[in-house]
Amino acid sequence: MASKAKAKLSLVFLLFSLVLLLSNLALATHDPERRDDEGNPEGPKRRLKECMRQCDRREGQEQPSCRRQCRERYQREREEQEHGGRGRGEERESNDSDEGSEREQEQGQQESGHPYLFEDQHFTARARSQHGRLRVLQKFTERSNLLRGIENYRLSILEADPQILVIPNHLDAERLLFVARGRGTISLVHQDRRESFNLQRGDVLRVPAGTTSYMINRDNNEKLVIAKLLQPVGVPGEFQPFFGPGGEDPESFYRAFSTEILESALNTRRDKLQRLFGQQRQGIIIKASEEQIRSMSHREEGGRSWPFGGESRGPFNLLNKRPSQSNQYGQLHEVDARDYRQLQDLDVAISFANITQGSMEAPFYNSRATKISVVVEGEGYFEMACPHLSSSESGGQGKSSPSYRRVSGRLRRGTVLVVPAGHPIVRVASSNQNLELLCFEINARDNEKYPLAGRRNIMNQLEKEAKELAFGVPAREVEEIFRQQEEDFFFRGPGQQQQEGGRGDA
Amino acid sequence: MASKAKAKLSLVFLLFSLVLLLSNLALATHDPERRDDEGNPEGPKRRLKECMRQCDRREGQEQPSCRRQCRERYQREREEQEHGGRGRGEERESNDSDEGSEREQEQGQQESGHPYLFEDQHFTARARSQHGRLRVLQKFTERSNLLRGIENYRLSILEADPQILVIPNHLDAERLLFVARGRGTISLVHQDRRESFNLQRGDVLRVPAGTTSYMINRDNNEKLVIAKLLQPVGVPGEFQPFFGPGGEDPESFYRAFSTEILESALNTRRDKLQRLFGQQRQGIIIKASEEQIRSMSHREEGGRSWPFGGESRGPFNLLNKRPSQSNQYGQLHEVDARDYRQLQDLDVAISFANITQGSMEAPFYNSRATKISVVVEGEGYFEMACPHLSSSESGGQGKSSPSYRRVSGRLRRGTVLVVPAGHPIVRVASSNQNLELLCFEINARDNEKYPLAGRRNIMNQLEKEAKELAFGVPAREVEEIFRQQEEDFFFRGPGQQQQEGGRGDA
Amino acid sequence: MASKAKAKLSLVFLLFSLVLLLSNLALATHDPERRDDEGNPEGPKRRLKECMRQCDRREGQEQPSCRRQCRERYQREREEQEHGGRGRGEERESNDSDEGSEREQEQGQQESGHPYLFEDQHFTARARSQHGRLRVLQKFTERSNLLRGIENYRLSILEADPQILVIPNHLDAERLLFVARGRGTISLVHQDRRESFNLQRGDVLRVPAGTTSYMINRDNNEKLVIAKLLQPVGVPGEFQPFFGPGGEDPESFYRAFSTEILESALNTRRDKLQRLFGQQRQGIIIKASEEQIRSMSHREEGGRSWPFGGESRGPFNLLNKRPSQSNQYGQLHEVDARDYRQLQDLDVAISFANITQGSMEAPFYNSRATKISVVVEGEGYFEMACPHLSSSESGGQGKSSPSYRRVSGRLRRGTVLVVPAGHPIVRVASSNQNLELLCFEINARDNEKYPLAGRRNIMNQLEKEAKELAFGVPAREVEEIFRQQEEDFFFRGPGQQQQEGGRGDA
Repeated sequence: MASKAKAKLSLVFLLFSLVLLLSNLALATHDPERRDDEGNPEGPKRRLKECMRQCDRREGQEQPSCRRQCRERYQREREEQEHGGRGRGEERESNDSDEGSEREQEQGQQESGHPYLFEDQHFTARARSQHGRLRVLQKFTERSNLLRGIENYRLSILEADPQILVIPNHLDAERLLFVARGRGTISLVHQDRRESFNLQRGDVLRVPAGTTSYMINRDNNEKLVIAKLLQPVGVPGEFQPFFGPGGEDPESFYRAFSTEILESALNTRRDKLQRLFGQQRQGIIIKASEEQIRSMSHREEGGRSWPFGGESRGPFNLLNKRPSQSNQYGQLHEVDARDYRQLQDLDVAISFANITQGSMEAPFYNSRATKISVVVEGEGYFEMACPHLSSSESGGQGKSSPSYRRVSGRLRRGTVLVVPAGHPIVRVASSNQNLELLCFEINARDNEKYPLAGRRNIMNQLEKEAKELAFGVPAREVEEIFRQQEEDFFFRGPGQQQQEGGRGDA
Repeated sequence: MASKAKAKLSLVFLLFSLVLLLSNLALATHDPERRDDEGNPEGPKRRLKECMRQCDRREGQEQPSCRRQCRERYQREREEQEHGGRGRGEERESNDSDEGSEREQEQGQQESGHPYLFEDQHFTARARSQHGRLRVLQKFTERSNLLRGIENYRLSILEADPQILVIPNHLDAERLLFVARGRGTISLVHQDRRESFNLQRGDVLRVPAGTTSYMINRDNNEKLVIAKLLQPVGVPGEFQPFFGPGGEDPESFYRAFSTEILESALNTRRDKLQRLFGQQRQGIIIKASEEQIRSMSHREEGGRSWPFGGESRGPFNLLNKRPSQSNQYGQLHEVDARDYRQLQDLDVAISFANITQGSMEAPFYNSRATKISVVVEGEGYFEMACPHLSSSESGGQGKSSPSYRRVSGRLRRGTVLVVPAGHPIVRVASSNQNLELLCFEINARDNEKYPLAGRRNIMNQLEKEAKELAFGVPAREVEEIFRQQEEDFFFRGPGQQQQEGGRGDA
Repeated sequence: MASKAKAKLSLVFLLFSLVLLLSNLALATHDPERRDDEGNPEGPKRRLKECMRQCDRREGQEQPSCRRQCRERYQREREEQEHGGRGRGEERESNDSDEGSEREQEQGQQESGHPYLFEDQHFTARARSQHGRLRVLQKFTERSNLLRGIENYRLSILEADPQILVIPNHLDAERLLFVARGRGTISLVHQDRRESFNLQRGDVLRVPAGTTSYMINRDNNEKLVIAKLLQPVGVPGEFQPFFGPGGEDPESFYRAFSTEILESALNTRRDKLQRLFGQQRQGIIIKASEEQIRSMSHREEGGRSWPFGGESRGPFNLLNKRPSQSNQYGQLHEVDARDYRQLQDLDVAISFANITQGSMEAPFYNSRATKISVVVEGEGYFEMACPHLSSSESGGQGKSSPSYRRVSGRLRRGTVLVVPAGHPIVRVASSNQNLELLCFEINARDNEKYPLAGRRNIMNQLEKEAKELAFGVPAREVEEIFRQQEEDFFFRGPGQQQQEGGRGDA
C-alpha cells in the first residue's frame, strides 16, 4: 500500500507520534497523584492544595467561590474514595458466592464505609448570607443505590439569625417542617387569604407543595433552626424554590418573562417594572427591623386552637404530646396521621427521642418504615445490623444464611442517619450530654416498632420449643437472658455504673 | 523474553501495525462528517442526503419506508444536536458552582433548547392509512430526564376521515379521550354486554385498560380528531394495541396461536379459521358504507343521562360545563374527579382554555399538577420560568439563589406543551385567531392554580412588611403595581391597543 | 524537547513497550474464547469446564461451593447469550421501521427466546440444608426490562421435610404465602402476643413486613411446599431475612452489635451472651423432635373462624372456595380483596387453576393484572401473543399495525410463567396429568378476565357491522365460528378425541 519513501516518512512520523504517545502513557502511569487516588487518601488533599493555589491567582471577587468549589470537589473525592472504593476493587466471584444473597447492592460501598450516615460535607448550601443559611442534603441515591426506597425524599436545614425574614417563595415539593430551635412565624399565602402561625421548638407543620410561604425569626437573641423533609411533586427527587418577590438576588421569576408580557399582565409601564424587579440584592435571608418583626409576629395563637377546629392547618407540637415511652433513661414522642391529619397522604410519621446522658435506646427495628433521623442536640453513637451490606467473607463457605454487618458511627448535632426498614438499630447518648434525635419515618402506615431487648422484647413471645431449637441451648437459658433487662425501651448505657447484680464483673 | 531475531520480526510487524493504527487514528481525526456532527448542523443533513440516495437504489416498493427511516433518523439526530449538545460541551465546574442548585437535570439540554415543547417530529405514526392516522408522542423521558415525573403517561392523537371505522382493539393502558373535533360513536365491549356512546366536541371519556373498544366517525363531512392520554398498566411507559378482529393488517392476535390451539378453542376446522383470520388487509382505520355507519351510530342518547344515573360510564362534556373563568379575553373550563368520577384513580384533571385573539392568560402556576397541553386550534406563544434549566452563568458568582431561565416557543395546532408543577407560565393568543388549549393535568389531587397577576394574584396577600423587605422598595410601590391589572385570569395581550392610562408611553 | 541520546533511549524503551502493547492487542484479538462468546454457544461451556478443573485443585470442603459458583456463572452466561444476543446483533434500522411501534423493549431478547418463563436455573438457593431449601427467583428486571412493571415483586419457594422448624425471622418485605403441599403451622410474633395458625394445602396467608414468624412442617411424612410472593418495603426489589434467634448459622443479628451494647441492652454478662449467640450451627431449616413438633402444632382451629370474626388475620383457603369456573375440563378458584381483606393494600389477587388432563383453558387476557403463575403439579404448555416482543421482520414493509409474536414453552412443576396485562394466553394440560397452576395477580383492582373463545367470548358482543368490517368477511361467517365452542373457560384440548361434528377431517 505504501511506497518505500512514503513508508520511511511514515516511520519518522510514527516514531515522533510514539514518543508523544508513550510519554503520555508514562506520565499517566507514573502520575504520583493518580497513584494517590488508588492507594492513598492524600491524593484529593494534594489536589485541594493545588486548586486553592490556582484560586489565589484569580481576582479578589472570584476567590471565595473558587475556593468553595475546591472544597466541594475535595469532599466529593474523599467521599468517593471512602464509599466507592470497594466497587472497583472487589471481585465479582466473591459476590456470587453460594449464599446467593443479593450482594449487588454493595456496589459503591467499602468494607469500612456505609451509606447510612450523613455529615456536614453531604449538605450543599442553597442559600447563604451573613444572616443565615439553608442547606440541602444530597440525594439519597447519589450516596447509594441501597437508599433508592427513599429517593423521592429530600432533607434540608434552615438556620436563621434573630430578626430575619426568609423571602416569600414556593417549592415544587411538599414540605414538612420541624422546629428544632427558636421562635418564628410562618405565613402561608392562599389565593384569597393568608394564614400566619407562630412556631416554637417541637412544632411540626406541613406546607403543601406550591404554597407561597415566608418565615421570620421573631426572637431577638436566639437562632431559628428548622429541619424540613421535602417530597418533590414535579421532578422526582429534585426541587427548586420559586421566588416571586425579589429582584436580582434572589432573582424574581417575574424577570424570566419578557417585558411585553409583564407590561400587559401587570398593566404597568416597563420603567416601573424594572424598578420593582431590580432592587433586591440581599439574598434570600434578610435582616428586618425590630418594628417589622414585631408587626409580622402573629398576635393571636389561632393556630393553636387546632385540633378542635379541625379545619386549621396550623402546627402540631410534638413535644407537648405525652411521650409514648418514658423513664429516667429517655423519652420518646411520636406523632402520626392520627394526631396530625396532614401526614396521611405523605405516609410519614415523626418522632423525637431524648436519650438521657449515659443512657441508650433499646435495640429495635421498624417493621415497615425507613427512618431519617437528624441529631438536634448532643452527642452519641449508633450501631446497626445490615444484611444488605454484609460481605460474603464474613460468612463461611458452607453457610447458607445471610450475615449482618455492623454499621456504626458517631452522632453529633446536624448528623443525619438513615435506618432502613427491618434493620436492628441501637442509639446511645454520650456520658455527658443528652442525645436528641428528630426522626422522619417514611412509609409509616401500619409501621410497628419491635424492641429486641427490655421488658417487652419480642423474643419473649417465642414458644419454648422455638427458643431451644432456634438458639440451640435450653429454653430456660434463653428466657433467663431475655428477661434480665427490666426496663422498657430506654436503658442505662454501656460503661455506666451498675445497680443491679446481673453483671458483677463487667 | 524475545530473542534478537524474534525482536527484529516483531519490529517489522510492529511498524506495519502502527501504520495501520495511526492511519486509522488520522482518519478518525479528520473525518469531515464527524467534524460536522460537533460543530456544524449540516452533519445530519448531509447524512440525510446520502441515506436518500441509497433509498433510490432500492426496489420501488421499499422506497417509501426507506425514506421514512432516513427522515426519522435525521430528525433524531437534529434533536440530539439541539438538545443534547450542551451535556457534552459544558464544563462540570460551572455546574458545581456555589449556587449549589441541582444542575444535573440540565443534561441533554442546550442553552437554546428546552424539553417542554413537542411538535410534529416528536410523534410517530402507529397507524396510517388513506383514511386517517393514529400518532403517538415519544416517551417523555426519551426527551429529557426532567420529565420523568410523567414518564408513565403517553399522549396520542387520532385523526379519522368521515365514515370510518377504527377496528376493535384493547390496549394494555388506561385511556382518557378528549374529542377535539367531529362526531363519533364509541363502543365498549364487556363480557356480557356492549355500551355505545355518541361523542361530540368537548366530550371526555375514560376507557379502562383492557376494554375492547371501537369507534366510528359518523359524520359525512367532518374529520374526527381525538386526543388521548394513556397510562400503561403492564410495562411502565409502553403500550401496545391488541387486535382480535383483523387478519393480515391489522394482524389478529389469534394468528399468534398455533392452529391446533385455535381448532380446539374455537371448535372449528383450520380451513375456516384460515379464511376468518386471513382476509383483512386494509389496516386499522377503514372505510365503512353510509349504511354501516348509520346502523352503528348510537340511536338513544343514554350515555348523556349521566351523572344522574351514576352507573353509566358515558362521556362528560367539558365545554358544556360552566367556565370557571370567563371574560372577554378568554374562558377556562375545568373538570376533575368531583365532576367525572372516573378521573379519580387516574389522578388526572382536564381543562380547556379558549384565549381570545390578541389576548393572554394570566401568568400562573399549578401547585402540584404537571400539565400536558395540546393546542386544539389557533396560534400563539408561551413563556415559562424554569429554575431546573437555568444556567449557572446567568447568575452572578456571588449569588446564593436560583435563577430562572425563560423557556418559550410558538404554539400552533397539534403542538404539545408540558408545564411542570410550580413553574410560572403565560400563554398568549395570536392577534388574528383564538387559541384553544386542551390540558391534561397529572397529579391533580389538591392542585391549585395560583395567578401571578390580575385581581386575585397572590402577591396581594403578602403583608406590607414582607412586600417592602422582599422587593426592597416601599410597600406602596409594590401594591400600586400589583393592583393595576383589574381583570381576572384572562387579559388583553401584549401589543394590543390600550384603553386604561397605565402605560402612556409604551 | 528530547536530546539525541535521550531519543535513542526512548526509542528502545518505545519498542519494548510496543512489543508488550501489541502482543496484548494480538492476544485480545485472537483470544479463541472471545470469539466463542460472540459466535459460538460453546464459549460458556468451555469456561465451565475450566472453572470446574480449578475447583478440583481446592480443598475438599470448598469444592461443592466452588462448583456451584461455576455452574451459576455458566447459567448466567448462557442466559445472556440466549436473551441478550439480539440486542447486540440487531440493526437499529430494522427497529425504527415504519410500524413505529416500540421495539426498544425487545432489547435483550432473542428471536428464539423470551423473558416470560422461569425455570430451575433462574432460582437461587437462599437457604439449603439436608432438611429442605428456600429458593428465590431472580429479580424480574434482571431477566428483562419488559418486566419492570413487576420489579418490586419477588417470588420464593420453600420446601421443608417432615418435622422441621424454619427458624424465627422477619423480612424487610411483605409476604403472601400459598401452601402448595403439606401441613404446617406458622406463628406470628407480635409485641404483646403470638398468633399460631395451622396451614394446609390451598391456604393463603399474608405475613406483614417486619413480622417475626416461624413455621413448622408438622406432618410426619409429607413435604411442606410453600410459594411466596414478596413485596420489599425497604430497598425496592431487594429483601433480606433477619434472624434474631440463631448463632453462627443462621447468624443472629444480635451478633452485629458490640459486646458492650449487648451487655447493657440485655443486662447480661458477656460470657452468657457468647454462649447464647454461639451455639446454633445447623442453618435455617432444622430438624425437630416429634414431641417438639406436637407441642408447636396449633391445637385449636381459631384461625379458621374467619371471616366471621373479622379481626383474625388467619389463613383463607382458596381451594375451599366455590370455583368461579368449573366443568369437566377444569376448575378455576379465585380470591381477591373482597374475600381476604389483607390483599387490598397489596393490590394482589390469587387464583388456582386445575386443568384436567388433555384439556385446555380458553384463550383469555387480564385487563389490568400481570399474572405470576407457578406450576404446582402436572405438565403442559402455554402459548401467548406478545406485541412488545414481535419483530419488525414478521410484519410486511407496508403494514401499519403491530404484529404478535407467539411466545410458548413447556410447563412443569416449579416452572414460573409471567403473563403481562392485556396479553392473550392459553394454557394446556398434558394428556396424562392434570395441570395445577397457582397465580398471583399483580395490579388486581378492577381487573377483568376476558375470554377469547367459548360461550361468553367477547367477540360475540361486537355489532354485526363491526364484525364484517373488522374481519373482512360476512358477519354470518364470523358468528358461526365464534359460536361453535359451547363450553365456558375450560375446553377439550388439542389432539383429543372429538365428539361434536365441527371438525370432521382434522
